[in-house]
Amino acid sequence: MEAGAPLPPAALDEPAQPVAKLTGTLFGVGMGPGEPDYLTVRAMKVLAAAPVLVHFCKKGRRGNARTIADAVLTPDPARECALAYPYTTELHPEHPDYVAALAGFYDDAAAQLADHLGAGRDVAILSEGDPFFYGSFMHLWRRLKDRFPVEVVPGVTGMSGCWTRAGTPITWGDDVLTILPATLPHAALVARLTQTDAAVIMKLGRHLPKVRAALKEAGVLERAVYVERGTMAGERVVPLHEKPDDTAPYFSMVLLPGEGRRP
Amino acid sequence: MEAGAPLPPAALDEPAQPVAKLTGTLFGVGMGPGEPDYLTVRAMKVLAAAPVLVHFCKKGRRGNARTIADAVLTPDPARECALAYPYTTELHPEHPDYVAALAGFYDDAAAQLADHLGAGRDVAILSEGDPFFYGSFMHLWRRLKDRFPVEVVPGVTGMSGCWTRAGTPITWGDDVLTILPATLPHAALVARLTQTDAAVIMKLGRHLPKVRAALKEAGVLERAVYVERGTMAGERVVPLHEKPDDTAPYFSMVLLPGEGRRP
Ligand SMILES: C[S@@+](CC[C@H](N)C(=O)[O-])C[C@H]1O[C@@H](n2cnc3c(N)ncnc32)[C@H](O)[C@@H]1O
Ligand SMILES: C[S@@+](CC[C@H](N)C(=O)[O-])C[C@H]1O[C@@H](n2cnc3c(N)ncnc32)[C@H](O)[C@@H]1O
Repeated sequence: MEAGAPLPPAALDEPAQPVAKLTGTLFGVGMGPGEPDYLTVRAMKVLAAAPVLVHFCKKGRRGNARTIADAVLTPDPARECALAYPYTTELHPEHPDYVAALAGFYDDAAAQLADHLGAGRDVAILSEGDPFFYGSFMHLWRRLKDRFPVEVVPGVTGMSGCWTRAGTPITWGDDVLTILPATLPHAALVARLTQTDAAVIMKLGRHLPKVRAALKEAGVLERAVYVERGTMAGERVVPLHEKPDDTAPYFSMVLLPGEGRRP
Repeated sequence: MEAGAPLPPAALDEPAQPVAKLTGTLFGVGMGPGEPDYLTVRAMKVLAAAPVLVHFCKKGRRGNARTIADAVLTPDPARECALAYPYTTELHPEHPDYVAALAGFYDDAAAQLADHLGAGRDVAILSEGDPFFYGSFMHLWRRLKDRFPVEVVPGVTGMSGCWTRAGTPITWGDDVLTILPATLPHAALVARLTQTDAAVIMKLGRHLPKVRAALKEAGVLERAVYVERGTMAGERVVPLHEKPDDTAPYFSMVLLPGEGRRP
């Protein structure tokens, strides 16, 4: 399969090698949903050791993955590498200008990380939740995986954190679970919600009014739970039909728990 | 929301209370996909401290969640509580005899754990992956949650472990991800696979021939990856169309990675 599957030869917790290693390893580190105690043991080891710690952010702001790391890292500006997305105002993600700007941004970032890796320095990219599940990390991984050793450290997903804090199992027995980006058109959301037993709707933000309408049309609004910043500071859990407004930050999702077999 | 959301008053890592606590806390501990380093910090703390460690197993065998704990626990038979499922040969899960036997088994197990909890002893149920995602834990949680404090510790899911080891991101951009139990009928599998961008097919076992046929009919067999015991001893990752036989253990799944937006 693709690069990243086996632990790399130069794994961080192995003793110093007799021969200097030629290139660094690219780590995609799953940071979990927010609560620092939900970091994995492997993530803790990689964070402690990697000489370069990379995180994505909006210009002038700290990235969320980096905030999670605050609880477990001794500050050291020399290790930090912040990658600020080109736009703060949102263009539509399909807009050719936006796609081109993003591609250029990822190309530049990959080149910057390739310098570190080429010089033998391990690079750890801090990724919210699990790196291979809608993660920005994937765009750098794609550009670097054939040239450098890779280790992906899986993480607790944001959705696991959210259903844990909502206090509700998401799937029982033979339930089908559908993960939907809130960016889908209204009709697509309705169709998917009508056909599934359980659902998670991610990337809410300004799409919440559309999502609420789709849940209503699919006849499942009563069962939907809104979770904002699950396991993070400022967490909020509320049945969606009790949420009076339609304001939602980026770090929020809607859960539709399944109701399958319960012996 | 339901019990289990906030950390319970008697959280394990708090200092000893001046007043003896009246009841123990029920912990559902996500054990991750198999690799012990993929345990969370919180799981490590709960495993170290809980006086009663519960795991599900087949008669005469060790449960998989318990095997993961071997790497991090000092053996202490006094803490162990194994819950052996009533049947080793498989009846159909919808069969009334099976449902009745299972319900009785869960009722008895819940009563046994309630004795510990009532006597003030914390009880940790070891759960593969994430406890609230198709977990057996949920059946005990359902029976005990209204009588005792509960803390669920989310875990890295088996599927995250599998796509990590397969070296492939599962979802990009606006991909829809569908999680399917392999127990679904052939036609249902085909319909779901035709409509989704990405999929995970769980609980393979003897259903692999049906799953392979459904993937073929949906025209996506070439993209499917078979993962057996992801991140555990005996891991196997292979493109499904290169797997010559149709034998699959319970701990296996098929991944259908998405191919969404990649700037
Ligand atoms: C680009 S995706 C990244 C997902 C991440 N890789 C994961 O495994 O959860 C970002 C979306 O994840 C969801 N999300 C992640 N963590 C969350 C949390 N702690 N609380 C609420 N939503 C969260 C939100 O819906 C957000 O829009
Ligand atoms: C009852 S479900 C439990 C899922 C678990 N709670 C989780 O979060 O992954 C059992 C199914 O999970 C899948 N599974 C879990 N861990 C796995 C692993 N490490 N490798 C392959 N399959 C796994 C298999 O498909 C198995 O049939």
